[in-house]
Amino acid sequence: MRALRYENESLGVADVGVPDAAGEALVRVTLSGICNTDLEIVRGYAGFRGTLGHEFVGVVERAPDAPALVGRRVVGEINAGCGVCELCAAGDARHCPRRTVLGIVNRDGAHAEFLQLPSVNLLPVPDAVPDARAVFTEPLAAACGIIERASITSATRVAVIGDGKLGLLCAQSVKALTGAPVTLVGKHPQKMSVAARRGVDTLALDRVRDGSGGLRADAPRAFDLVIEASGAGGGFALALDLVRPRGAIVLKSTFHGATEINAARLVVNEVSVIGSRCGRFAPALDLLERNAVDVDSLISDEYPLVDGFRAMERAAAPGVLKVLLRP
Amino acid sequence: MRALRYENESLGVADVGVPDAAGEALVRVTLSGICNTDLEIVRGYAGFRGTLGHEFVGVVERAPDAPALVGRRVVGEINAGCGVCELCAAGDARHCPRRTVLGIVNRDGAHAEFLQLPSVNLLPVPDAVPDARAVFTEPLAAACGIIERASITSATRVAVIGDGKLGLLCAQSVKALTGAPVTLVGKHPQKMSVAARRGVDTLALDRVRDGSGGLRADAPRAFDLVIEASGAGGGFALALDLVRPRGAIVLKSTFHGATEINAARLVVNEVSVIGSRCGRFAPALDLLERNAVDVDSLISDEYPLVDGFRAMERAAAPGVLKVLLRP
Repeated sequence: MRALRYENESLGVADVGVPDAAGEALVRVTLSGICNTDLEIVRGYAGFRGTLGHEFVGVVERAPDAPALVGRRVVGEINAGCGVCELCAAGDARHCPRRTVLGIVNRDGAHAEFLQLPSVNLLPVPDAVPDARAVFTEPLAAACGIIERASITSATRVAVIGDGKLGLLCAQSVKALTGAPVTLVGKHPQKMSVAARRGVDTLALDRVRDGSGGLRADAPRAFDLVIEASGAGGGFALALDLVRPRGAIVLKSTFHGATEINAARLVVNEVSVIGSRCGRFAPALDLLERNAVDVDSLISDEYPLVDGFRAMERAAAPGVLKVLLRP
Repeated sequence: MRALRYENESLGVADVGVPDAAGEALVRVTLSGICNTDLEIVRGYAGFRGTLGHEFVGVVERAPDAPALVGRRVVGEINAGCGVCELCAAGDARHCPRRTVLGIVNRDGAHAEFLQLPSVNLLPVPDAVPDARAVFTEPLAAACGIIERASITSATRVAVIGDGKLGLLCAQSVKALTGAPVTLVGKHPQKMSVAARRGVDTLALDRVRDGSGGLRADAPRAFDLVIEASGAGGGFALALDLVRPRGAIVLKSTFHGATEINAARLVVNEVSVIGSRCGRFAPALDLLERNAVDVDSLISDEYPLVDGFRAMERAAAPGVLKVLLRP
């Protein structure tokens, strides 16, 4: 089968064997999505070698321990725990220290004709959710994961930094799940308009920053919660400028390299910084089924899997949102 | 009067006028303590110029709006808010954006014969607490402030990094206030023994770190809460190694300069980082009155104020804990 692989410091589509899936389910991938994490892996993040990709929708071909899943259209939780440690026993495979992660840690990923995952990781997709929406379940679940980590009510003043696909999903899902006033700070009016149509306030970055890198005198500030979803070096510093004393900053982006922070500002203003990675799939599928979040507008392009290299180039180009791969 | 001042990039004892204290209370300082923040200010932290010092005990000489305080032995909350903003109205002068801070922000400090503060900042010291203990109220309140910011029960596994005076106060006060199992990680057996006598477990740093900077295989890990009180560059990285997934790191140290953090680890392990600065004075005075925390063992030296320059040198020397100044 074909698979988009990163190995020997080189990215390309290769012919590899279909996964043997011993003891796990075999899924025929119908559509996969390129995440910024895929791009970061090629830049050195996570030290991963193998088939990339962790956002997918597909059809179950085999599932020895869950025959009812065969033939079903599914999405899949990407963390596979060891099953026996304390965290796994408590139901938290997402943080199992020996976990594998689809296309990220010791497990071939979804940019391929087939993938394997434990059957317990798979969730059937409601009929009302077409493939081109279902493929957003994983990143949308990650966005929904914010409310597992931070307390947000309809009175919480929320800012989201970054109008890329992650920022657009975070802004829309926090708005949809909590009703909080959400302000999206970004550079691209057209991208921000996607969130604006779903009730999110938008604010151009140059209305926030002054010429010398400080906050403009008329910029809004003192947000209760700031979600950093830009993945840019300056995003954290901006979050510190926007958050109120004793407020919280949620970090969503994973990227290769270190971030310099002014730790004294965290201490003096008593700010909390909350790391947030994955989230549960069920709330995300529910949002998609209710069409409560616009993911259609996030699709920039679709390529056949065989053009995976070009698709990755396209996904890395400025202004591009989600690029899909069809095996 | 004499005062230990930092100005024109130079530190020294100068003769200055007694504060006029218009509308505020005038306090005759009987003892003050040198904090690492004083040393950091001389290295450039906070951009402060004026009389240093924010830890003191003294006697009220004048207090136009609180005559009952005159003649009383007091300690003082160091943040003075504007009194009219939203935060001050809510009782949180500690985060007022226009606040002054004794010896740190736009207000002459405590290493002097006299200081002035709003009367509302002053708390009488119980008779059972001698000056040499009362002078620890401010740093002990800062340590107690941790439980305002992080939820700690008797089942929370707590580690404290750093066996300097801040770490010793944090470890002892968390233990005394919560009964949690607390492990102090440090380099100096003699310093750590102060906390050990109050029920804190201690762990030598070389039993935690291996030769290459990783965690030793047999090192304890997966702490629910790690308090970074070393102020050293490597403290935050060690905290990240020691904390469990979805655990929390409390930052207590303020210092000049930036800290490099691996933001991806915060995100992947979904760790929270909680900034904590000051705390309320009443719980600290209560701990001192009950002798629940050993501060006597933290006193390394006492100098007359006139020798303030030498006292600061002494406070900066390796292995030295609290240095006191007597006007």
